[in-house]
Amino acid sequence: MKFSVSSSLYYHINEPATLICSTSCHGTEGQEIIDESLTTSREVTRTDLTVGLEANRLVKLEVLTPGHLSVDYQATVNTTLHLVDAARIKPKSSGAFEAVTLPYLNPSRYAPADRMRAIANDLFGGIRSPLAQALAVEDWLFENISYQIGTSNEQSWSLDTFESRAGVCRDFAHLGIAFCRALNIPARYVMVYAYYLIPQDFHAVFEVHLDGSWYVIDGTRKAPLNGMIRIATGHDAGETAVACLFGDVRGQGIYVSTQLAVDEEELFVPLTRESLRGKGKMLVLG
Amino acid sequence: MKFSVSSSLYYHINEPATLICSTSCHGTEGQEIIDESLTTSREVTRTDLTVGLEANRLVKLEVLTPGHLSVDYQATVNTTLHLVDAARIKPKSSGAFEAVTLPYLNPSRYAPADRMRAIANDLFGGIRSPLAQALAVEDWLFENISYQIGTSNEQSWSLDTFESRAGVCRDFAHLGIAFCRALNIPARYVMVYAYYLIPQDFHAVFEVHLDGSWYVIDGTRKAPLNGMIRIATGHDAGETAVACLFGDVRGQGIYVSTQLAVDEEELFVPLTRESLRGKGKMLVLG
Amino acid sequence: MKFSVSSSLYYHINEPATLICSTSCHGTEGQEIIDESLTTSREVTRTDLTVGLEANRLVKLEVLTPGHLSVDYQATVNTTLHLVDAARIKPKSSGAFEAVTLPYLNPSRYAPADRMRAIANDLFGGIRSPLAQALAVEDWLFENISYQIGTSNEQSWSLDTFESRAGVCRDFAHLGIAFCRALNIPARYVMVYAYYLIPQDFHAVFEVHLDGSWYVIDGTRKAPLNGMIRIATGHDAGETAVACLFGDVRGQGIYVSTQLAVDEEELFVPLTRESLRGKGKMLVLG
Amino acid sequence: MKFSVSSSLYYHINEPATLICSTSCHGTEGQEIIDESLTTSREVTRTDLTVGLEANRLVKLEVLTPGHLSVDYQATVNTTLHLVDAARIKPKSSGAFEAVTLPYLNPSRYAPADRMRAIANDLFGGIRSPLAQALAVEDWLFENISYQIGTSNEQSWSLDTFESRAGVCRDFAHLGIAFCRALNIPARYVMVYAYYLIPQDFHAVFEVHLDGSWYVIDGTRKAPLNGMIRIATGHDAGETAVACLFGDVRGQGIYVSTQLAVDEEELFVPLTRESLRGKGKMLVLG
Repeated sequence: MKFSVSSSLYYHINEPATLICSTSCHGTEGQEIIDESLTTSREVTRTDLTVGLEANRLVKLEVLTPGHLSVDYQATVNTTLHLVDAARIKPKSSGAFEAVTLPYLNPSRYAPADRMRAIANDLFGGIRSPLAQALAVEDWLFENISYQIGTSNEQSWSLDTFESRAGVCRDFAHLGIAFCRALNIPARYVMVYAYYLIPQDFHAVFEVHLDGSWYVIDGTRKAPLNGMIRIATGHDAGETAVACLFGDVRGQGIYVSTQLAVDEEELFVPLTRESLRGKGKMLVLG
Repeated sequence: MKFSVSSSLYYHINEPATLICSTSCHGTEGQEIIDESLTTSREVTRTDLTVGLEANRLVKLEVLTPGHLSVDYQATVNTTLHLVDAARIKPKSSGAFEAVTLPYLNPSRYAPADRMRAIANDLFGGIRSPLAQALAVEDWLFENISYQIGTSNEQSWSLDTFESRAGVCRDFAHLGIAFCRALNIPARYVMVYAYYLIPQDFHAVFEVHLDGSWYVIDGTRKAPLNGMIRIATGHDAGETAVACLFGDVRGQGIYVSTQLAVDEEELFVPLTRESLRGKGKMLVLG
Repeated sequence: MKFSVSSSLYYHINEPATLICSTSCHGTEGQEIIDESLTTSREVTRTDLTVGLEANRLVKLEVLTPGHLSVDYQATVNTTLHLVDAARIKPKSSGAFEAVTLPYLNPSRYAPADRMRAIANDLFGGIRSPLAQALAVEDWLFENISYQIGTSNEQSWSLDTFESRAGVCRDFAHLGIAFCRALNIPARYVMVYAYYLIPQDFHAVFEVHLDGSWYVIDGTRKAPLNGMIRIATGHDAGETAVACLFGDVRGQGIYVSTQLAVDEEELFVPLTRESLRGKGKMLVLG
Repeated sequence: MKFSVSSSLYYHINEPATLICSTSCHGTEGQEIIDESLTTSREVTRTDLTVGLEANRLVKLEVLTPGHLSVDYQATVNTTLHLVDAARIKPKSSGAFEAVTLPYLNPSRYAPADRMRAIANDLFGGIRSPLAQALAVEDWLFENISYQIGTSNEQSWSLDTFESRAGVCRDFAHLGIAFCRALNIPARYVMVYAYYLIPQDFHAVFEVHLDGSWYVIDGTRKAPLNGMIRIATGHDAGETAVACLFGDVRGQGIYVSTQLAVDEEELFVPLTRESLRGKGKMLVLG
């Protein structure tokens, strides 16, 4: 499908500052960037950076004079639907111990899997296959965690969410990641643009590695899985922040929009977990 | 200098299990591996893996039958001394925001810098240059943290060490890393073989990125900085574990040895922080 | 001085519920209750309870039918000013180890002094007398903690406040209590009505035991120390909650008012820490 | 039954110090102290204190000169067996909200019930009566927590034990208390001498308040419930420490012995949870 995404980050700069922004879509085989632009509301020194294990696309902006600044991104992105027969995902895969997946078994700042092994085992240890465990984790998140803005903050980690049973997309993802890693299922955090997400905002989901592929999981179930466009991938939110601010900078809001190309709107068939289950499929994000 | 290192990890395997071991030295420009071997006490399925952002060398061992297993590594490594004039390290570098360093500003499992900003600022905020801050962090660790085996465990993080003021090399490194990242100095964890370390064991130190290079810091001051041979590098101990065990496996001890080649023993001049300060130098690990 | 205080707690009851409320003033030698009344907006089963080590006055309300409920308290209270010469407080008192003070050296839920010994010692260990330490704690709180609604929640404890450097009166008190106990100064939490507090709300301060008396400390410095009327006393906020709700009850706001009797308004001379220091005095609450 | 208990605490005093010890049995209606003595190995200044809500018997020892010190206690205590028909404990009691029980619904340092409500509800929320919940908590502790010395420390709290699934008697009691309070069952910590406990040591259990009485619960199941002699009672271990040390004092070990009077040894019928269940009884400690 052809998506048109855009976002703006608004800031007030009080003194010379550096901003590292992550709003650009990721170009992959399944997610082709047809056109894109990142502009700022006034002239700043800009450096494009490719950062980390997943080659996230960050933009460094150095601002010398005080005042307002907006960082505006827009892109047209073509995604290819990639479905896999769930029945063909081998139940016992040694994939968890491949070079590409090993980093995502490690505990991270917001997903301290090492402290959640007993808890994960209580809840999901009796389930046989990693695929069934991952889907049970998603179900558990959806059924037990209440989506509530204001109940968590930037320092909340998976243990907090497990205790409080409330959070936002970031918290759902961190708890799911911690559960999966604790079950020896490699899991990583993904920041996306999400079609149909209401209200529009950046969205966070996670991916689990099963038998050679990364499959998307979203315990919030707030947006169709085939309407997501990958921005950044990492261990957790600490590695995929929309913006890191150095210096006296105040955020003044964000704007996010995810649309389908006008001629494709009628073609979109939202794929939810329920519909994927009905088809016996798992979805790979672009 | 030419070092001869060796280590053995001893296990009892109770059922089919997988071990991911990290005892091999890292080959770099400043650290040439002349010869090496990794053997096991009995036949197992072995796969060599290159993992993560720093291309750590891990070995995956799949063991199907119960019984004892030892994983024995030995190598001869030639290290090149790399000293930099401290006076030439530029006090205000934008290096913290380069692609290669950005991952090491993020909070990680055991070094949650995001929760230590005020504390780091209390202690080191008044110090001007990042170099002086990093050295003050090392001094603070040495003067305030008591090296005591048994006061921490595998889940201890920098906040615990700050509270308890006690720990082992791993804890010193995590607290130092958290302080530095909280001060916007990129910092990463390094596992090494360490000459003169008594008793011999794997050792953990950290590196800070200042004006284009990574400099080694060791708050324990238990071994000369020029006697360290890099094994693995990462965000923290979660990414550089000596061994990760999957299945019912019991550790039964380790053996570590770090020696100089016989003909070089008399040539070794230990470089401590004190001696480096006397010379106005900072040391880059191989 | 003769104060007129009142408060209302507003609830919506969804099912049979029990509320334990603590809005009544405490009668003491230095705080005489001239008249008071506690009424509810509709008939409920009411039981007056005297609870805990400090004989806090709680009211249990059992509500069987759904609907709104307000709990309205008003009282006229006469307080006697009790000042002590700071110079006469003995610097080395064994008072910390008396029966009446020992409970207040123990760590409590929100003031885990056992985890803050090193930190407290860093900051205040060099100060000689307990009196000077307690005043230094108050100064530190005032200078380092930012009073900000929304930065903490009901589960925040002193370690959070030390990390984040922000909180409300409750958080200031918990951090001060934890510091003092860590220094072996008995400290307890006090809920008060506070004259001049803007906006009017219940207020939390703490008391330290020095040479035989409890002296009031308020790191927020948001209200004069001689305008406080004690409601409840305890280890921390866990023991002195304004209301504990059992059943499906929603809080819908509170109203608090603290006034001087009309004929006394002109006589009130606010005593702040600064003015007390000027006079060389410490204040004992009623 | 007539028990003969004794204990010794051994210390090395390095400078003038104060010790607050709690090894004396508590005299109650069901636990009569026939004779007792507390002596020290050399002359110290001793003050007997009655402390806190439960009138715990503490002994303050002031020691001015360095050297060894032992604190030796022995007593003969007569306990009266107090069994209650479980069937007569009313399933819905408002006892949780009585003056005497309210303090034991509050979260405390090592039993932060406010953070364990969702977890407790997951595990025990489906069970109807408070009595059945309390017994299910005991069963869960016994079945899920591994009794292992060295896995916890003095700062471990119920969340740690829930995560790690390992601990000692103190940790079992704290987790059980936190679960019960989270279910609105008043629960308190009890330090006891325990007959049959191997190896002999001070033991910690907890009590829950149901329909007017406090019933003993012991998730470790390491000693018969009718062989326990109460020393101290409180919110948690923070309030019932065997010894609090002020000054440079090193513990050098303890000795504990709990015996039956010679003529009663053959009469003792150990009451375990299993045997109590068989009889349909609950036990009230003296």
